[in-house]
Amino acid sequence: METQKIVIFGCGNVANYFAEKFMLLNHNIIQVYHPDHKKSEDFAKICDAEAINNFLDIDVHADLYFISVKDDAIAEIASKIHTNKGLVAHTSGSVKLDVLNKHVRSAVFYPLQTFTKGIKTEHQNFPILIECNQNSDEKYLTDLAQNMGNSVQYMTSEQRTEIHLAAIFAANFSNHCIKIAYDLMQNKNHDAQILLPLIKESIHKLNFINPAQAQTGPAIRNDSITIEKHLALLNEETLKSIYEIITKHIQSSNQ
Amino acid sequence: METQKIVIFGCGNVANYFAEKFMLLNHNIIQVYHPDHKKSEDFAKICDAEAINNFLDIDVHADLYFISVKDDAIAEIASKIHTNKGLVAHTSGSVKLDVLNKHVRSAVFYPLQTFTKGIKTEHQNFPILIECNQNSDEKYLTDLAQNMGNSVQYMTSEQRTEIHLAAIFAANFSNHCIKIAYDLMQNKNHDAQILLPLIKESIHKLNFINPAQAQTGPAIRNDSITIEKHLALLNEETLKSIYEIITKHIQSSNQ
Repeated sequence: METQKIVIFGCGNVANYFAEKFMLLNHNIIQVYHPDHKKSEDFAKICDAEAINNFLDIDVHADLYFISVKDDAIAEIASKIHTNKGLVAHTSGSVKLDVLNKHVRSAVFYPLQTFTKGIKTEHQNFPILIECNQNSDEKYLTDLAQNMGNSVQYMTSEQRTEIHLAAIFAANFSNHCIKIAYDLMQNKNHDAQILLPLIKESIHKLNFINPAQAQTGPAIRNDSITIEKHLALLNEETLKSIYEIITKHIQSSNQ
Repeated sequence: METQKIVIFGCGNVANYFAEKFMLLNHNIIQVYHPDHKKSEDFAKICDAEAINNFLDIDVHADLYFISVKDDAIAEIASKIHTNKGLVAHTSGSVKLDVLNKHVRSAVFYPLQTFTKGIKTEHQNFPILIECNQNSDEKYLTDLAQNMGNSVQYMTSEQRTEIHLAAIFAANFSNHCIKIAYDLMQNKNHDAQILLPLIKESIHKLNFINPAQAQTGPAIRNDSITIEKHLALLNEETLKSIYEIITKHIQSSNQ
């Protein structure tokens, strides 16, 4: 793949991840846009790019306009882009392709991964869910993704939303259960880190069996004595409710 | 540590894990007890031990009576053990030490880990939570645990229950969120396995930051448009409730 001229919109976790990848592949990030001057300047330095804060300064000759901003800001940015022949793509899991309607060459390039600035992504072989307004752009984005070491799945906007919803449960909600566990530990002056081998092993099992088969604990054992003890220990009403609803759901959905 | 003569009660996931460890350390599993003749025979073969089904056959000369059975079966088994000088220990997270009251040398040896038969435990450096009726037994169980590569924490029955409760959230409930994600994927004919890099990365981050810092997604972003879209996609009432209660809890507890 030849060197691509890329304009990146946004400078959050996803923008940072792909900026680094693009540079590793010798693509040329020509501009980075952010309304906050300080943020665009800082990011531009990392990317060896021009910082822009005004839509009128967007280069019309880029190959790829990579919009990686908050969902509700995508439409406005897309409407302000003028391009000769470039492809306009956003990276959101829940925003439809048609928000980029103004552009014939439009696409979604959604990484099924969680990114946090400052933490090197360990699992880089995640899939990228691609949707293109023109079929001819599928090959372009597939090459771009595969050169970064990613697999590719073609998905409609509807399918992407379904997968995004599943991802919320798989990553955000499971992470929140772990957050609750950390709080429970810390509230009683226990070192929360001692839970890590357990947490990691619980995920390790998913390499071999599915989560229904991997389930252990008092809920799946119908151990009502332990469940009652735990409910009595929880003194926050919402935590009690979360414990009860998940316990019941484990019991009913694993039958 | 000299070779210990051990009687194991139960043949579940925990019993299997420690039986293998004991053998690796050249301890001598002299008997395995299970009321089901077939199960005790099969397990006895693995352990190169005698299978017993009758409490009267328990060897009184063992060094360690290792009770790794369902919580509600511990008390009865403990009451049936007669020993000259051996230590009687159970492995439960939620059963108090005093259920072993009959024995002066009694203890809890609770592994803070999840085990599934047939899957080799990857994270073997988990802590073992130890509680002893006699302080003099702490060194014995600590040596036993450390020789297996485990760290040790001394905990009262009350503390152990607190940690067990946290472990339910950290492992069982997070696993169930992943199970829901797999179901959502499969119901829409998506390959659930494509979520694995995301799930693994979400856990990988916990090596560097705590789960509150690691949180991403629509709840923490207060992205009400995406949240509404997701709720509309969930057609099972309990799933809607789980989505709502966890979303609200993320929003309120991360402020």
